[in-house]
Amino acid sequence: MVKQLEEETLSTSVLYRGRIINVRQDRVKLPSGKTAYREVVEHPGAVAILALDEQEQVVLVRQYRQPAAAVLMEIPAGKLDPGEDPLHCAQRELAEETGLQGSSWKPLGWFYLSPGFSDEKIYLYLAKGLSKAPSQAAADEDETVEVVNLPLNQALDMVARNELKDAKTVIALQMFRLSTL
Amino acid sequence: MVKQLEEETLSTSVLYRGRIINVRQDRVKLPSGKTAYREVVEHPGAVAILALDEQEQVVLVRQYRQPAAAVLMEIPAGKLDPGEDPLHCAQRELAEETGLQGSSWKPLGWFYLSPGFSDEKIYLYLAKGLSKAPSQAAADEDETVEVVNLPLNQALDMVARNELKDAKTVIALQMFRLSTL
Repeated sequence: MVKQLEEETLSTSVLYRGRIINVRQDRVKLPSGKTAYREVVEHPGAVAILALDEQEQVVLVRQYRQPAAAVLMEIPAGKLDPGEDPLHCAQRELAEETGLQGSSWKPLGWFYLSPGFSDEKIYLYLAKGLSKAPSQAAADEDETVEVVNLPLNQALDMVARNELKDAKTVIALQMFRLSTL
Repeated sequence: MVKQLEEETLSTSVLYRGRIINVRQDRVKLPSGKTAYREVVEHPGAVAILALDEQEQVVLVRQYRQPAAAVLMEIPAGKLDPGEDPLHCAQRELAEETGLQGSSWKPLGWFYLSPGFSDEKIYLYLAKGLSKAPSQAAADEDETVEVVNLPLNQALDMVARNELKDAKTVIALQMFRLSTL
């Protein structure tokens, strides 16, 4: 017997409109026929970049994250502009946050970060052939980041010790390591 | 020169109170001295379980996710109850979603899923020594899941092909694989 899992959306209403996210509530019909409510955070989506230099150092950024109330070390990342192609966004964000461009770009897949309540997708890229971007694109005015280059093995050791706490950063580093085995 | 990254919270206000999440807006003082606003989704936190049986099969659950408008395949997971110990939550969720208990539990670390806008942390565990839980705990009434056992290597192949789209599932599988090398 194949289990019926799909839910049917009966109605939807926006409960909150914010600067980055919206929150909506959907009334859904469950496989059992009953109805339930689902709270959904709408997010524009994001990209993140595993940028590796000739010495196999990975480019990380340190940034204060208000939700974590802490400085986290992450791979460069940013939100998609409306209608923006994810690769273009990745190239833009790498330049804005690190002043670098890559000559070779490869998609590493895309993922839902919290599919239980958020529609945020993140697209990961591997960038190589790094050089200084022609003119440093202006970063967001309210974003202060510090660029750190770490040997890839050191970054992977930090993942294994749970010292890197950011999901996209962990996925990208692990994925690259497994792809080289 | 050490770059100043920390921001200081000047005031905070709740803009939305939901069933699972709240949204607040913090006014912060940037390192530059300017002020800015940060939109923060407050989430209770979650756990997820990489459950491996004697044949090195991983226990996955298929579940319709309204934010993705699709059935996703994920490791068992769930939200923390207020004040709940993450390990206790993991044992509870494994029983509720799969009817299984584990005799051996090991923490695999914790992560922020989207630290740019959400404070959600997820705690990952490895569970082994699986057996039928004494009595199947009642799952959430509005949650329908289908349990699937897959050989670990097959699940890792699906990660490499970007067929498993859920971040916590990818992290847990990759982390276990890298720990066995």
